[in-house]
Amino acid sequence: MKELIEKARVLLEALPYIRTFAGKLFVIKIGGKVLTSGENLHQFAQDVALLRLVGIGVVVVHGGGPEINKLLERMGKKPKFFQGLRVTDNETLKYVEMALARLNMEIVRLINQYGGRAIGLSGNDSACIIARKIAPKGKDIGLVGEVERVDAEVIQRLVREGFIPVIMPTGVTHNGEAVNINADEAASKIAVSLKAEKLMMLTDVDGVLDKRSRHVHSMNRRKVRRYLKEGIIAEGMIPKVQACLGAVEGGVTKSHIINGTVEHAVLLEIFTREGIGTEFIA
Amino acid sequence: MKELIEKARVLLEALPYIRTFAGKLFVIKIGGKVLTSGENLHQFAQDVALLRLVGIGVVVVHGGGPEINKLLERMGKKPKFFQGLRVTDNETLKYVEMALARLNMEIVRLINQYGGRAIGLSGNDSACIIARKIAPKGKDIGLVGEVERVDAEVIQRLVREGFIPVIMPTGVTHNGEAVNINADEAASKIAVSLKAEKLMMLTDVDGVLDKRSRHVHSMNRRKVRRYLKEGIIAEGMIPKVQACLGAVEGGVTKSHIINGTVEHAVLLEIFTREGIGTEFIA
Amino acid sequence: MKELIEKARVLLEALPYIRTFAGKLFVIKIGGKVLTSGENLHQFAQDVALLRLVGIGVVVVHGGGPEINKLLERMGKKPKFFQGLRVTDNETLKYVEMALARLNMEIVRLINQYGGRAIGLSGNDSACIIARKIAPKGKDIGLVGEVERVDAEVIQRLVREGFIPVIMPTGVTHNGEAVNINADEAASKIAVSLKAEKLMMLTDVDGVLDKRSRHVHSMNRRKVRRYLKEGIIAEGMIPKVQACLGAVEGGVTKSHIINGTVEHAVLLEIFTREGIGTEFIA
Amino acid sequence: MKELIEKARVLLEALPYIRTFAGKLFVIKIGGKVLTSGENLHQFAQDVALLRLVGIGVVVVHGGGPEINKLLERMGKKPKFFQGLRVTDNETLKYVEMALARLNMEIVRLINQYGGRAIGLSGNDSACIIARKIAPKGKDIGLVGEVERVDAEVIQRLVREGFIPVIMPTGVTHNGEAVNINADEAASKIAVSLKAEKLMMLTDVDGVLDKRSRHVHSMNRRKVRRYLKEGIIAEGMIPKVQACLGAVEGGVTKSHIINGTVEHAVLLEIFTREGIGTEFIA
Amino acid sequence: MKELIEKARVLLEALPYIRTFAGKLFVIKIGGKVLTSGENLHQFAQDVALLRLVGIGVVVVHGGGPEINKLLERMGKKPKFFQGLRVTDNETLKYVEMALARLNMEIVRLINQYGGRAIGLSGNDSACIIARKIAPKGKDIGLVGEVERVDAEVIQRLVREGFIPVIMPTGVTHNGEAVNINADEAASKIAVSLKAEKLMMLTDVDGVLDKRSRHVHSMNRRKVRRYLKEGIIAEGMIPKVQACLGAVEGGVTKSHIINGTVEHAVLLEIFTREGIGTEFIA
Amino acid sequence: MKELIEKARVLLEALPYIRTFAGKLFVIKIGGKVLTSGENLHQFAQDVALLRLVGIGVVVVHGGGPEINKLLERMGKKPKFFQGLRVTDNETLKYVEMALARLNMEIVRLINQYGGRAIGLSGNDSACIIARKIAPKGKDIGLVGEVERVDAEVIQRLVREGFIPVIMPTGVTHNGEAVNINADEAASKIAVSLKAEKLMMLTDVDGVLDKRSRHVHSMNRRKVRRYLKEGIIAEGMIPKVQACLGAVEGGVTKSHIINGTVEHAVLLEIFTREGIGTEFIA
Repeated sequence: MKELIEKARVLLEALPYIRTFAGKLFVIKIGGKVLTSGENLHQFAQDVALLRLVGIGVVVVHGGGPEINKLLERMGKKPKFFQGLRVTDNETLKYVEMALARLNMEIVRLINQYGGRAIGLSGNDSACIIARKIAPKGKDIGLVGEVERVDAEVIQRLVREGFIPVIMPTGVTHNGEAVNINADEAASKIAVSLKAEKLMMLTDVDGVLDKRSRHVHSMNRRKVRRYLKEGIIAEGMIPKVQACLGAVEGGVTKSHIINGTVEHAVLLEIFTREGIGTEFIA
Repeated sequence: MKELIEKARVLLEALPYIRTFAGKLFVIKIGGKVLTSGENLHQFAQDVALLRLVGIGVVVVHGGGPEINKLLERMGKKPKFFQGLRVTDNETLKYVEMALARLNMEIVRLINQYGGRAIGLSGNDSACIIARKIAPKGKDIGLVGEVERVDAEVIQRLVREGFIPVIMPTGVTHNGEAVNINADEAASKIAVSLKAEKLMMLTDVDGVLDKRSRHVHSMNRRKVRRYLKEGIIAEGMIPKVQACLGAVEGGVTKSHIINGTVEHAVLLEIFTREGIGTEFIA
Repeated sequence: MKELIEKARVLLEALPYIRTFAGKLFVIKIGGKVLTSGENLHQFAQDVALLRLVGIGVVVVHGGGPEINKLLERMGKKPKFFQGLRVTDNETLKYVEMALARLNMEIVRLINQYGGRAIGLSGNDSACIIARKIAPKGKDIGLVGEVERVDAEVIQRLVREGFIPVIMPTGVTHNGEAVNINADEAASKIAVSLKAEKLMMLTDVDGVLDKRSRHVHSMNRRKVRRYLKEGIIAEGMIPKVQACLGAVEGGVTKSHIINGTVEHAVLLEIFTREGIGTEFIA
Repeated sequence: MKELIEKARVLLEALPYIRTFAGKLFVIKIGGKVLTSGENLHQFAQDVALLRLVGIGVVVVHGGGPEINKLLERMGKKPKFFQGLRVTDNETLKYVEMALARLNMEIVRLINQYGGRAIGLSGNDSACIIARKIAPKGKDIGLVGEVERVDAEVIQRLVREGFIPVIMPTGVTHNGEAVNINADEAASKIAVSLKAEKLMMLTDVDGVLDKRSRHVHSMNRRKVRRYLKEGIIAEGMIPKVQACLGAVEGGVTKSHIINGTVEHAVLLEIFTREGIGTEFIA
Repeated sequence: MKELIEKARVLLEALPYIRTFAGKLFVIKIGGKVLTSGENLHQFAQDVALLRLVGIGVVVVHGGGPEINKLLERMGKKPKFFQGLRVTDNETLKYVEMALARLNMEIVRLINQYGGRAIGLSGNDSACIIARKIAPKGKDIGLVGEVERVDAEVIQRLVREGFIPVIMPTGVTHNGEAVNINADEAASKIAVSLKAEKLMMLTDVDGVLDKRSRHVHSMNRRKVRRYLKEGIIAEGMIPKVQACLGAVEGGVTKSHIINGTVEHAVLLEIFTREGIGTEFIA
Repeated sequence: MKELIEKARVLLEALPYIRTFAGKLFVIKIGGKVLTSGENLHQFAQDVALLRLVGIGVVVVHGGGPEINKLLERMGKKPKFFQGLRVTDNETLKYVEMALARLNMEIVRLINQYGGRAIGLSGNDSACIIARKIAPKGKDIGLVGEVERVDAEVIQRLVREGFIPVIMPTGVTHNGEAVNINADEAASKIAVSLKAEKLMMLTDVDGVLDKRSRHVHSMNRRKVRRYLKEGIIAEGMIPKVQACLGAVEGGVTKSHIINGTVEHAVLLEIFTREGIGTEFIA
């Protein structure tokens, strides 16, 4: 009985957080290892289902680089990149869509298994992510785009009716062409268009580290700029930090980079006072 | 961190129960010691606030016998009973209403403090509990009634809009006279009229005991009848058991007698597999 | 038949007033003798029920000073005041709540009897009246507060669904403590928060009198200021006049001080051209 | 002041009737002298506006025989009848529609002037009265029909939104041809299709008289049949009585034949205990 | 089969226009020959029914000068005009209303026959067109008015619920008097009050011609002013052009003068790229 | 101009059909050559967009056998069948999902391009198609299932809000496993669960032929049974005919097998009197 009472106490500790966030909306981006490790994905699906049940709206955005590369290699196509962007011809796009769609279905299935009501979406669905093609340094890299506008209506409706949209990062141009877009950017733009309370980027690191490799708990715009300038934030971390900053500048209350390989990272971030990872505020 | 993860796991254990009961309605009756012990009442208020936040509708019905007696004595009136029913003249009713109203406000305040949105009601409000006077064995015992009809509309509306109605047990006759009614009976009739999923009677015992004083986990109609006949259920337990039975016969899925002096009794009953106390099914 | 036709004509005289006020909201404050005289209260309840039936929203706010004093005395506690405010220790507050709650139930019952659908509320209900404690001239007078904010949502919802909220004047602080508040002030603040059309203060005098003791029909802000300065408005009339002025300054179209001991005072004020009492405009 | 209070009392006498009928629907048919006397029509319009303001739904159906005859004569066409039905060629129908439409507009204008929100309708509007042609004794009498079906949807919507539909008695056949229909029959069928509480037929007599010319207050089906058989109900009264009987047989609670030339006949019928005229129950 | 496929292609050509206008509202004014030719009116009714079915809101406003004159002459009254306005005494107004009402019913019936759900309205209905009397050059010409305010609520509600309001041009003054108003002006004001997408004036000419009698496709405010000044737009065309200009200045996106005697003129204007007639933009 | 008027006439011919089907729901299944020919698919997308715009609800279900086989072969996996069912191991299912998802996105994109608002779904989304595994003749053929239940809620909501769900044929078992299901069966079950007006199966033949190879226009249950028994319906046609029959037996008004390679087959079927293909009625 004592153990049971202990459990009841834990539930009650969550009370103030549930109260704070009930009716709010979180956009959570997952990618990299979190997606490929079955265990992490299961825990993630559970966390998402719980959030939704306690009244918090959740939209999931996922990447899928490793899966895409694997499929391309299986097809005998060598993945090509230019300035970190995947050079995407028609055939490549086909495999990109296949790999992402497949991953998307898996995430949807898992969340449903834990009692959520997930629905997979891509930017094509009701043309909800309008993108324009980009040509970095003037170079044609094919069907690659950046988000021009998110039509939040479909997504919002689904959220309002209790569903959990799970969105894969492709967009559609004004001409109706599908394009490959960056998942971090997509998540950030979706969060802004939905006036989300939080954007959470699940990666496989613990957040931003400072010069002496100490974990940074909280950053504002100015600090981010300085760290970028001083090169403390570098490489793969740059787009994630920029997505976080873009979100809060666009009106999202807080964004977070957290380590998705930590067990139940999402719940820990939300239901504990300190949270984990690095938070970004405007 | 490990401890935090452990807490996340506890939260997730509640997932299937939240899923099962979300959108359902529970009527919870509290009385006796649970009401008079500050600590129990605080825990009760927390439990109720949590249930509401995770999407479960809650209606609280409370008694107040000890408080009434205390006030009557303070006023120099000796409480009188006939067959367990309070003999209630006009002046007595006045003090009954005062004592109950005061208790009601305290419960409302506590639940609000823990983030619920409680609203106090009596059977007078929009005449939601219509009662008829009773005269046991033909004896006039004054302003004492039994529930004739519960007008669930007001209560239901409040529940649907996220409020937690806290109801004190007085009714109103067709002539507009206020009458004292039994809280157990009121809770049972309210549960039936609201088509509640559960009726929970919080007492200060662990439920029904069998002949050898062993705790009985579950009873159906037949078993209840036999126990009553054999005198195993006796005295103060009789009205509680009858209220429970009446509820399930009226369409409530399950009713429960549980020990409200156990810490977080309500959560334990709902969020653990076995539950505590005795459950009644049709 | 002639008499009947005469009656039909009277009904039709009310037509333009019903048309003007249908869908609008009136806040009516009753106190003093109106509350304690059974006959006046019955007539008041009838008037309120009629207003609601012809499509006018009504919120009742009531005081209860005499009832509170009577109960305190019965309890052997001598009522204490400082600058017109009741010094309120914990025990006093308990009796304040008891007396007010009891009065509240009576008003609710009467209105229901005449076909209204009244629901009793206090400032605790869903914490709809947030108050802060006051200490006049730095003196601690206990659990006495002034209105900080009225959360109109609950009240508005009830009005919209055809109910008649009857509100007793207690508030709740941010710490969840109950406090005694002034009924005139509460009525004024509630009227403002509900964007009421009218605030009607039912007292036992005919309104404001001028220097020569002639009845004043209508006053604006300037005139009120002058009368206050010149001491023409004095004593018990001051808080009532200030409540009326505060209401119209807060956006209420008109407020009125009328004599509630006049038979059907509320109907007379509304359904006759001249009205009775003194009206206040911005 | 005394006189004013007397008026307030009259208003309050109406309270129980308003309570009983609020939200219900009345269909009122006017014809004959009531329509042609300016004074009667003004009083009728006032009564209707008042009913609507106190929450009672009203649908007006009107005839217009005298007006039609007058126009036909002005046009040099002699009105022709066969078995009480107007023989209606194409040109006649044109003048029937003109005369009725003009009358309809006048009624609408008057009700609006007294604060109602009346809207004129004919059976053509959204084809709400479907009729089939009739040929009494096999004789072709032209564009004359009987009601086949009333499409209550349009009328109901308007009533629900607070409007007062004023309906002139023409219908439309399945072929889209306009036909002349009997106003009494139309009123009866409309009352049934709308599940009205009351059908009121305003004529210029006081209701049904018995053999000894005494006024009959109330009749049921059997009594009506007997009176018809014995010839006590005769001539122009027959279709009115049949319309009343048809209505209550079709589910209308009560129907009434009342003298519309009595001042405020409608209010008298509704807001007095005994009513005036003759009532019909199933 | 080939022919069928050709038809399918025609349907699909309409796709982009339906897409553009779905959910928008068109006000269409018909008058003159279009109204008097049975064939034109049938085609007009079909066009209107189709527009409504593909999701475009339609409000029809009609004149009726020739019909009014015919009736007046039949009655032995000589139509009189002052500055193009009909001098309207009480009797004249009566015949104006009769003639218009009759025409109105015919239009309603025809639209209903083709599957629309038309409802006839005049400015009296719920007093939706408030007018003030005019006296050109100080001369009293009787019951003639100009539109002061259109109460769009009734019309809008009907449109929203899928009905097609067909409005005849009479208004009502603040005193409740009916007045004759100009149909072109009424259509223009109604279009503005409804925030219509288009105002279409169906006449019996092809639109505006320039100095050399060439058809003008499109005009803006400046061009209209110049043409008026130079007398290129003259006589009967002036009020039509002013109605069109008034509409676009009041917020209507485009207005059009088109030849309603051309078969299916309305569909041609909407579902072809170039349209027919003259369009007016702000 | 003449040509334009001809076009307007064609539009108007569609009027009665639009009227009949507005607000109804059609389930359309496409597969085989219709899917792989770009031109057919474009025309199909146009037809679907038009239907939706004129107020007809549309749900698309598609197969994808050839695309799946192509992908499997590309992966070096030989497609295996048992009794016409694809033997589906885990890896095969992965490629099945990839091929179907990709096709789904293409259909969605095309419909959106023509102005529809399509949204892709699979049976996983909110677990809307619950399936159970099948083992024909006891043989384990892997992840192959039949439809147990369609949860119409999600689909219905999307249809009600104007979207066009495009559904790929996979289901999910009670254990959360994805399974391959037959597209014809899925379409039929979806049509039944949605209470559709029509099920249309687009194939590449003209419908059912009789013994003498003459086209059969209409069949009822009995005729279907006889044809099956006599072997006139054989091979690939059997499941299609059974899907059609199952639909009408389940409450769908009519089902159709039509030749989707005919230009604008869907529009021809709906907007012409005779329709094309073979229709099935209960």
